[in-house]
Amino acid sequence: MTEQSTKVHVKPADGRLGVLLPGLGAVSTTFIAGIENFKKGLGQPIGSLAEMGTIRLGKRTDNRVPKIREFVPLAPLNPIVFGAWDIHEENAWQAAKRASVLRDEHLDPIRHELEQVRPMKAVFDKEWVRRLDGPNVKTAESKYALAQMLMDDIQRFREDNRCDRLVSVWCGSTEVHTDITDVHLDPDRFEAGLKSNHPAISPSMIYAYAHIMAGVPYANGAPNLALDTPALAQLATDKRVPIAGKDFKTGQTLMKTILAPGLRARLIGVNGWYSTNILGNRDGEVLDDPGSFKSKEVSKLGVLETILQPELQPELYGKIHHKVRIDYYPPRGDNKEGWDNIDIFGWLGYPMQIKINFLCRDSILAAPVVHDLAMFLDLANRAGFFGIQEWLSFYFKSPQTKPGLYPEHDLFVQKTKFKNTLRYIMGEELITHLGLDYYYADQK
Amino acid sequence: MTEQSTKVHVKPADGRLGVLLPGLGAVSTTFIAGIENFKKGLGQPIGSLAEMGTIRLGKRTDNRVPKIREFVPLAPLNPIVFGAWDIHEENAWQAAKRASVLRDEHLDPIRHELEQVRPMKAVFDKEWVRRLDGPNVKTAESKYALAQMLMDDIQRFREDNRCDRLVSVWCGSTEVHTDITDVHLDPDRFEAGLKSNHPAISPSMIYAYAHIMAGVPYANGAPNLALDTPALAQLATDKRVPIAGKDFKTGQTLMKTILAPGLRARLIGVNGWYSTNILGNRDGEVLDDPGSFKSKEVSKLGVLETILQPELQPELYGKIHHKVRIDYYPPRGDNKEGWDNIDIFGWLGYPMQIKINFLCRDSILAAPVVHDLAMFLDLANRAGFFGIQEWLSFYFKSPQTKPGLYPEHDLFVQKTKFKNTLRYIMGEELITHLGLDYYYADQK
Amino acid sequence: MTEQSTKVHVKPADGRLGVLLPGLGAVSTTFIAGIENFKKGLGQPIGSLAEMGTIRLGKRTDNRVPKIREFVPLAPLNPIVFGAWDIHEENAWQAAKRASVLRDEHLDPIRHELEQVRPMKAVFDKEWVRRLDGPNVKTAESKYALAQMLMDDIQRFREDNRCDRLVSVWCGSTEVHTDITDVHLDPDRFEAGLKSNHPAISPSMIYAYAHIMAGVPYANGAPNLALDTPALAQLATDKRVPIAGKDFKTGQTLMKTILAPGLRARLIGVNGWYSTNILGNRDGEVLDDPGSFKSKEVSKLGVLETILQPELQPELYGKIHHKVRIDYYPPRGDNKEGWDNIDIFGWLGYPMQIKINFLCRDSILAAPVVHDLAMFLDLANRAGFFGIQEWLSFYFKSPQTKPGLYPEHDLFVQKTKFKNTLRYIMGEELITHLGLDYYYADQK
Amino acid sequence: MTEQSTKVHVKPADGRLGVLLPGLGAVSTTFIAGIENFKKGLGQPIGSLAEMGTIRLGKRTDNRVPKIREFVPLAPLNPIVFGAWDIHEENAWQAAKRASVLRDEHLDPIRHELEQVRPMKAVFDKEWVRRLDGPNVKTAESKYALAQMLMDDIQRFREDNRCDRLVSVWCGSTEVHTDITDVHLDPDRFEAGLKSNHPAISPSMIYAYAHIMAGVPYANGAPNLALDTPALAQLATDKRVPIAGKDFKTGQTLMKTILAPGLRARLIGVNGWYSTNILGNRDGEVLDDPGSFKSKEVSKLGVLETILQPELQPELYGKIHHKVRIDYYPPRGDNKEGWDNIDIFGWLGYPMQIKINFLCRDSILAAPVVHDLAMFLDLANRAGFFGIQEWLSFYFKSPQTKPGLYPEHDLFVQKTKFKNTLRYIMGEELITHLGLDYYYADQK
Repeated sequence: MTEQSTKVHVKPADGRLGVLLPGLGAVSTTFIAGIENFKKGLGQPIGSLAEMGTIRLGKRTDNRVPKIREFVPLAPLNPIVFGAWDIHEENAWQAAKRASVLRDEHLDPIRHELEQVRPMKAVFDKEWVRRLDGPNVKTAESKYALAQMLMDDIQRFREDNRCDRLVSVWCGSTEVHTDITDVHLDPDRFEAGLKSNHPAISPSMIYAYAHIMAGVPYANGAPNLALDTPALAQLATDKRVPIAGKDFKTGQTLMKTILAPGLRARLIGVNGWYSTNILGNRDGEVLDDPGSFKSKEVSKLGVLETILQPELQPELYGKIHHKVRIDYYPPRGDNKEGWDNIDIFGWLGYPMQIKINFLCRDSILAAPVVHDLAMFLDLANRAGFFGIQEWLSFYFKSPQTKPGLYPEHDLFVQKTKFKNTLRYIMGEELITHLGLDYYYADQK
Repeated sequence: MTEQSTKVHVKPADGRLGVLLPGLGAVSTTFIAGIENFKKGLGQPIGSLAEMGTIRLGKRTDNRVPKIREFVPLAPLNPIVFGAWDIHEENAWQAAKRASVLRDEHLDPIRHELEQVRPMKAVFDKEWVRRLDGPNVKTAESKYALAQMLMDDIQRFREDNRCDRLVSVWCGSTEVHTDITDVHLDPDRFEAGLKSNHPAISPSMIYAYAHIMAGVPYANGAPNLALDTPALAQLATDKRVPIAGKDFKTGQTLMKTILAPGLRARLIGVNGWYSTNILGNRDGEVLDDPGSFKSKEVSKLGVLETILQPELQPELYGKIHHKVRIDYYPPRGDNKEGWDNIDIFGWLGYPMQIKINFLCRDSILAAPVVHDLAMFLDLANRAGFFGIQEWLSFYFKSPQTKPGLYPEHDLFVQKTKFKNTLRYIMGEELITHLGLDYYYADQK
Repeated sequence: MTEQSTKVHVKPADGRLGVLLPGLGAVSTTFIAGIENFKKGLGQPIGSLAEMGTIRLGKRTDNRVPKIREFVPLAPLNPIVFGAWDIHEENAWQAAKRASVLRDEHLDPIRHELEQVRPMKAVFDKEWVRRLDGPNVKTAESKYALAQMLMDDIQRFREDNRCDRLVSVWCGSTEVHTDITDVHLDPDRFEAGLKSNHPAISPSMIYAYAHIMAGVPYANGAPNLALDTPALAQLATDKRVPIAGKDFKTGQTLMKTILAPGLRARLIGVNGWYSTNILGNRDGEVLDDPGSFKSKEVSKLGVLETILQPELQPELYGKIHHKVRIDYYPPRGDNKEGWDNIDIFGWLGYPMQIKINFLCRDSILAAPVVHDLAMFLDLANRAGFFGIQEWLSFYFKSPQTKPGLYPEHDLFVQKTKFKNTLRYIMGEELITHLGLDYYYADQK
Repeated sequence: MTEQSTKVHVKPADGRLGVLLPGLGAVSTTFIAGIENFKKGLGQPIGSLAEMGTIRLGKRTDNRVPKIREFVPLAPLNPIVFGAWDIHEENAWQAAKRASVLRDEHLDPIRHELEQVRPMKAVFDKEWVRRLDGPNVKTAESKYALAQMLMDDIQRFREDNRCDRLVSVWCGSTEVHTDITDVHLDPDRFEAGLKSNHPAISPSMIYAYAHIMAGVPYANGAPNLALDTPALAQLATDKRVPIAGKDFKTGQTLMKTILAPGLRARLIGVNGWYSTNILGNRDGEVLDDPGSFKSKEVSKLGVLETILQPELQPELYGKIHHKVRIDYYPPRGDNKEGWDNIDIFGWLGYPMQIKINFLCRDSILAAPVVHDLAMFLDLANRAGFFGIQEWLSFYFKSPQTKPGLYPEHDLFVQKTKFKNTLRYIMGEELITHLGLDYYYADQK
């Protein structure tokens, strides 16, 4: 496969698409509720490139800027059906009411549709998410048996809903931090570990395994170690299943990957970046546990280093005091708030400061990411792509790459990669923004 | 000239370069003082891509990331000499002390060098900058005669300092807003206007004219209408002189062109952007005059619209209440402070807010921009480029483009354009961030 | 009358109280809706000292802290009835819906009650409030005739609603700034001016005149010159009517009168205070007119000077750059937002900064002020107080005082004055916070 | 002693005053350097009520507002001499340079004076301040022996410097949190504990004991448990020594005790208060230890509850989520920065938010507090006051009161108490802000 502009063959998006969601909480229900509203012509899918995005083609003077949906063959909204697993038995309507992200005006018209989404029993282990517990949980002799039960769930869902294709996006909670150990190193050892109930295999790894084995494209929205183990990455390549991760990029980290590239672009030095977050939802409660916080912290801290490249510019970025705090603060509810203080310096070392206060809504920012990942993983699958989908880095705090390849955290590099990939798929010229021919073409 | 990767012929940067500066205030003296420090090995030219920037070449795995200065032939710092015009007679040392941007530790070691920079008499008209006045001003019968005097100044400076090449960057104050009128439409009418003292020809236009006529590459750091009149743009093409403008992108607008592309990339809607600035230096005083403020306001307001493209996404960006305030606030001194409130919305229209408080230093951010413009205009000249240098958009609030071509305000598009132009000049492959070959090359 | 602790005779609060409101917009309807909710036992009158306030009596160790309402005889909520004037014909229900301050859950249960409040025709003149206009306006030959019509309205309201007592609080818009002229100097000249249609007599003065003449205690919630003319202040004393003004203290100015006394208490120097406000309601629209803004600006700017007393401490407060901006910003709706930057300095002159971002709701903060003014003016009236009620300074941006007496802007001095007045009325000991007797009583 | 206005007998402030400082770090050296500058007529003692404060006497119309120093007999600056203990051997000049709070312009003129202040060996125990260590430390068999050594130091200092009076202010670090145990309950048990090296007796308690025994008025600027043990409070009464504590009120807590009383005054509800602090000096390093942080946290958290009185107004203040964070952040240096988010609610429960960003300087705010405590404790001593000086609550985060008496945290109540105490001492009428006589005196 070269980078020439020859169109890739993409299978059509015919038939019914099923979207599976491990975790039926604030993010999932906000996502489902949005899609059900849009199906009825209510509301706008704001934040979704699949639904509202445009793409410039050709030269600046060509004025060719179609909607992405009109350019690449994406699955239509209408035959989409939803499935989920959760540790609570509440259906999507009840879960959405409890999450209290959306107002009644966005829930009442679709109550019936939400009530149909009843969670399957979850694979869950309190050792991995210490602040949560619930009754709707599978039990089995081994982790391998749990994986088989998930595969059965997937197969049953496919049949019951007459789905032609499936895709899955992890929307569950953040698990306790863990490092890669032997059991994660290749598919065989992983499978043996499942059978021997190896303690380093977490529930989210079992979901990932089950989906890959079932041939379902899969994305990981949490910082949990799962797809990014060598074992599961290799398995995805072996099974020719596209995967993408990890940790949805929303809120403060999104801001960081916008701002840091800007500072880097202009070579403004940074010697401190203090970030605090207050949030009051279930996510805040989970992250109040130091083990889960560790996972999130690692995911959040990596961002700056890769963007700022201290090894290339030690005078500018070699000594950054980077601190990330997350505090559980119930008055905020699902509305997350971030405050960043950034200490920067310029010409001759003179210091300046930037403060950013972001009053954001977690699930509102995450829902379109879930949708886009579902749409573009399904596209990737039909285009014959498989394994790590680095071009979807745009959506993740910790983008997964091939070993040996540093991740791109710069949102704008990610965007260029994403859009040039779409252009490549459709055989359009890649955009470089050189544009000298506008000025000199007629001079020669 | 095509976009093929064939190396452009660039003349070597031998000999002495003279940098001319209309306006010897806080920005110019901070710039000169920096360069004189760096010549002595003191301090760091932070913010300058010419001095500290790097450029990735080839594939991500190649690890080819030279310094820009080692990649393209830029003028060495050491033979650089400085000239300036100003309405005050103070030399650069006195002007720097009065501006009180730099501390004594950065002025004392180079006092002698700064004292050598004594301003030539300025072309000035209080009608165009109502809050300033000074004694060091040329008088003549006509604007044409004033232009001739400037050309004489340039010639004398070149000879006195034995310069092989010159380049000039406007660092003077913001003039009263004016629209394009007949006299600005072509070189002939403009020249006739100079002779007849046409009231719509401002001092900054006279400087631009004189420099182009003298063959000196010229950049416009203020929002004044000058290079962007059809008359002067055409003249620059005719005389094969590279030009670039306008209005240095620093502070709040820099932040806007970082943040807005980020919001646009993720299709987050915007319905309000309120920006207020407080600043206490001479610039603040000048902008306290409504006429000068108008020029600055027009320059600042244009940014959002071009980045957000409301015509493409009226649901997201069609109704933005964008307000820009600048208030003269003496306690701040040269330290400018911006506060932005941005009202955004996401999935199903739910509102969120971002607040940014930027405690910045105007001259510290502008000085490296002056230097880079001098370096890259000189490079452009030696590379045979002329007329509008759109690839330098990166440095401007209101980038100048060819008529019919919309400006790129997105800092990241500007950066790509800038770096791919350097790659083009040196015959390197342009970067598209596609990168599929990392994943699939070995599969085929 | 001395300051001895002898109880004042206060007439009982029997019978029906009518509350009149010139202006039936966001503030008035939020106030009325609140009271109607509370009558039904719904919601809480948060911010109202009359309803929720407590007062410490005696020594700290006495633990005597009754509710204010249980300590002084205030009018009970239940027989309160509302009247209003407005330039629009909408009833209070319609006006409240348009203002969109309160959610339906606070309007639906009291819809019937709100619909009963239908505005009487207003005295209005577009010359004084340039951004508004409406159809529900009185016309007459002279301002004097207009005043008579208002007195007729008052009389009719009293009879129709069988009110035993009335009280009135101006809740209309900010008029164009005007200075005191001859016609404002005494009651006779003012009355002559009414008859001759003197242009310096504004509608809000006509309302104030009519109420005083009708013996109705009256408060002025806007910065309009009215009660604070010598003519009307004298008239109130002559007619033995209590009055209080002016300009409700809410939002940013409230914060200022909290913070500035704190800085003053600790002798922290101030050299700059920059305040900007963004607001999107009808009030914002009115203040977008420079004439009305001037009235508000004068009212807001006076605060700091009186609190900080630059004449006493010129080294600390002699050179404050105080700037107040109000910008009409529709995305904010009724939610007002203030951003303050305060430049302070301490020991040896070292500078520090405070930034305050207040996301407030104008009408939510103003409604309890309206209520308290109604309650305490009625109390003052029954206690035999008349003329300027300086003890109600607590509620105003520009507290009205007797000529020759500087106003107290410090919220905490105002609070002490307010509470000691209540203690005085009820014959309780005034509180000085000396408290040495706790420590030494048993030693002697 | 009654609260009548009869003048207290105050001994004159003749002779030399010695100011002792346990701890010679950023705060102490900033304090000493300031005083030495002021002695030479350089700089201003901003923030000091003793030096710059004024006091209103009599009626508002009297215009009697003398400087406090001209009203009460305070020790003159000129014969003041300084002594200190510290774990480092650096003299005050070296310590001030290392602290880098003051610029050279405020240190160079007084270098000689600072170099004379050489710290005596400290009583120190790393168990109590885990992040610090130093060589200049006393060793002895018992804590009792250490106390004797301190008393010897005091006596020697008094003689060597020919002091007529002494006063001492703890400026050392925050010790690990401890609760009151048996050994702290009365002077006898405490003394026995000193002799038996009881582990619950910390170094700062030993200092307090030694000073009281030596008859030296003593203030505690840290949150350490010391003067507020029953043992030491009783000892101070027995020995007739005035004491005051604890924890200097500067920075964020100062702001809290300004703002919270304002919200309370207007009955604005509070349901969340999130405070984060970033600081980079030695204090920040010490507080990075959880034990020391606990002491500071307890001191900081108590403030809100006492001001807001949730027991009186549970609907308004009964459920506040109050969180305090302190993070060590080296880029800030001695400049501390606080960010507060306050969630408030008004009329009918509608929510609002306040955000405060305080860029402050710790030692600059603390230095005048040290000075005032020295001046007013010396005054108290000469006025015959002894034991807990509650009237100095104004300066403390955790004001010490007699058992059974709740502390006053409201800065404005504290100010009234402070000023009325001064008025009381000098036989002036206490101020109540009633002021009805201005209005009605001439009517009767």
